[in-house]
Amino acid sequence: MELKDSIHKVKEDSLKLASLDGEIRNRALEMVCHALRSEAPAIFKANESDLAKAEKDRLPEPIVKRLRFDESKLSDCIAGARDLIKMDDPLFKVLLKRQLDDGLSLTRITCPIGVIGVIFESRPDALVQIACLCIKSGNGIILKGGSEAKATNRVLFDLIRKAACEAGLPENFAALLEEREQIDQLLKCENDVDLLIPRGSNSFVKYIMDNTTIPVMGHADGICHVYVDGDADPEKAVPIIIDSKTQYVAACNAAETLLVHKDAAEKVLPKLAEAAGGKITFRGDERTVSIIGCERANEADDSTEYLDYILSVRIVDSMDEAIDHINRFGSHHTDCIITENVDEAEEFMRRVDSAGVYHNCSTRFADGFRYGFGAEVGISTGKLHARGPVGLEGLVTYKYQLRGSGQIVADYAAGRSVFDFKDL
Amino acid sequence: MELKDSIHKVKEDSLKLASLDGEIRNRALEMVCHALRSEAPAIFKANESDLAKAEKDRLPEPIVKRLRFDESKLSDCIAGARDLIKMDDPLFKVLLKRQLDDGLSLTRITCPIGVIGVIFESRPDALVQIACLCIKSGNGIILKGGSEAKATNRVLFDLIRKAACEAGLPENFAALLEEREQIDQLLKCENDVDLLIPRGSNSFVKYIMDNTTIPVMGHADGICHVYVDGDADPEKAVPIIIDSKTQYVAACNAAETLLVHKDAAEKVLPKLAEAAGGKITFRGDERTVSIIGCERANEADDSTEYLDYILSVRIVDSMDEAIDHINRFGSHHTDCIITENVDEAEEFMRRVDSAGVYHNCSTRFADGFRYGFGAEVGISTGKLHARGPVGLEGLVTYKYQLRGSGQIVADYAAGRSVFDFKDL
Repeated sequence: MELKDSIHKVKEDSLKLASLDGEIRNRALEMVCHALRSEAPAIFKANESDLAKAEKDRLPEPIVKRLRFDESKLSDCIAGARDLIKMDDPLFKVLLKRQLDDGLSLTRITCPIGVIGVIFESRPDALVQIACLCIKSGNGIILKGGSEAKATNRVLFDLIRKAACEAGLPENFAALLEEREQIDQLLKCENDVDLLIPRGSNSFVKYIMDNTTIPVMGHADGICHVYVDGDADPEKAVPIIIDSKTQYVAACNAAETLLVHKDAAEKVLPKLAEAAGGKITFRGDERTVSIIGCERANEADDSTEYLDYILSVRIVDSMDEAIDHINRFGSHHTDCIITENVDEAEEFMRRVDSAGVYHNCSTRFADGFRYGFGAEVGISTGKLHARGPVGLEGLVTYKYQLRGSGQIVADYAAGRSVFDFKDL
Repeated sequence: MELKDSIHKVKEDSLKLASLDGEIRNRALEMVCHALRSEAPAIFKANESDLAKAEKDRLPEPIVKRLRFDESKLSDCIAGARDLIKMDDPLFKVLLKRQLDDGLSLTRITCPIGVIGVIFESRPDALVQIACLCIKSGNGIILKGGSEAKATNRVLFDLIRKAACEAGLPENFAALLEEREQIDQLLKCENDVDLLIPRGSNSFVKYIMDNTTIPVMGHADGICHVYVDGDADPEKAVPIIIDSKTQYVAACNAAETLLVHKDAAEKVLPKLAEAAGGKITFRGDERTVSIIGCERANEADDSTEYLDYILSVRIVDSMDEAIDHINRFGSHHTDCIITENVDEAEEFMRRVDSAGVYHNCSTRFADGFRYGFGAEVGISTGKLHARGPVGLEGLVTYKYQLRGSGQIVADYAAGRSVFDFKDL
């Protein structure tokens, strides 16, 4: 079967999936948990073969680490699915109920988006997490995992599909793509795919965004800032900066640029340099260099996502300058102010145009689990639909139902009938 | 000044606009109302010159009608703006407030989208309506109106901008484009424009969607269906079909295809043909032709938006067949079932994948005013962000504010701190 036909079948079955009760979708998740546990030996065996191939191909250590699917990852996956079962059904929620006139009532009700295409990196646990989120939210799903994880993904996909279908989900609610070339074909399926969620390198996400008319949710880069205000407490500032930069440098919510008010520079920068203990390479503007004697930053540093133990540092004369810098060079992901002045903090949080605006805490908190949302499909720096960490809620849309008893618009246009709006 | 610089200035000022209190935005609307009234002679004079030119250019009557901006249109515009003043502020609404841990609290709060580009047809009242919606919702706005209305639009734009700035809005919160060639330049301003709302012909909207990476909200076509179930009451069916088709044929929510269950065909079609009294041209499938002797439809009729007094008619053997047809050929805009069987109606409304799913009422109700939303910027057939008629609510997004007291992620990762989620 051609790829576009397989994808069209997912579209067709997504329409059946959309009207299934929450009970059936929860039962499917139950059966997935059960299958993950009972098929554990087959999963681990497939993963061993992926790992052996990775070793043979001398893949870098971080990739191998993410590729590994062991008992601890399996337990996390099952626990994640059980959490989803406990969550309220995101579908068929009434968001608005309004009488327009006697016997004419409008309801806005949540429903699935349709078919979601997720292109993800090497972690096989991402496949389980995403598939479970889509089952819970009643969306058809096209999965494309990293080629390093091909064997593991295939076993996981097959068992999830089998378990979910036994619970009553339609046969083609999900499809797995296994070849890189299929991505370009997927990008052309605008009639059958309603949303793409690419997860991967900046250049990859940007490639997806530039080469499809399907809506894309995600973020291409994460240039996050920490701004240390003149009224900052250095005791808070230093650990927050170190955590924002180094707690996991490869993450999109790691800080890349530090902005320091001129009144705080002398108090904070030497302490920061000392606390970093050589672990962070600072690239500073002229004033920073004069204080801590670090490397000199150039223009490109303002818009570089290092994803490394490097931090660019700039001294600013005012909070206005910091806000302007963040709105201009940032990626509207997550930006933080450190200050004891609550009014300044509130103004910063209002004026910075980012999905996350923080006061006195690490940018690394920008994450669905840490927000208490449960599993996430990604973080969005777009402003439409979902913004920030996207969980179940970002996978649903709504429709308007209008229930009448023969009403026609001509009567209202002619004044024979008059609207009588009442929220119910 | 180059166009892209003007647009960039709107972006810069939109960041100031985003943090203005609702009081200032309402005062701006008050001053706009006042200016519209006091500048009425200048508006009418400019409109006369547009109308004279339209007559000289022999523009079609419907365009001339939409172009006319008289006392009645002016009063409607002022009344619309006054309604907006009375509405709740859509900004700074707290959508979620959650404690993540002691002294670490997360708030999701509404904020403007940023800069919205609206490309609209000949009606100058649309300029007023859209500008007022953007003022109320704190968005910067780029307006491009029809060239027929150039003089009227210029007067309206200048007075709105002057009035709003006197109330405290930043100087460049809005820009007016006057040349058609500028549209292509606008489509490339993806760093400064957050959302495009094109209103116009199908081909024009499709052109916009295909030639920009800026998110687009709207609908390219409106192929709406009425399905007459086997249990339909012909007394309801006939007026609903006639209203859906003819109450305003040029509207996107007018019906283009009628699907009739085989058990209802003999009861409904002859009455419908009689009631239409020659005003509607029917294009039927074989069975329809055998009942009412109309023109024969061909394959293209299933996917044609006539915007005219033409209705394609197809007899189906089951509701399943009707739903499949609608999901396949429809444009996910608005589709209606006519039946006395409530269970069938509920199933139809669940399974039809459209922004509006109706039971026993005209498709022409799909409109922001008729839903009681006040003014609308358009109707969306996309599934992300806003769906259906889009008013104020569709012009806002949200951000996450996280207020801490020095928290870092390393402490939670190491188990020294533990999240303690509590919705507040």
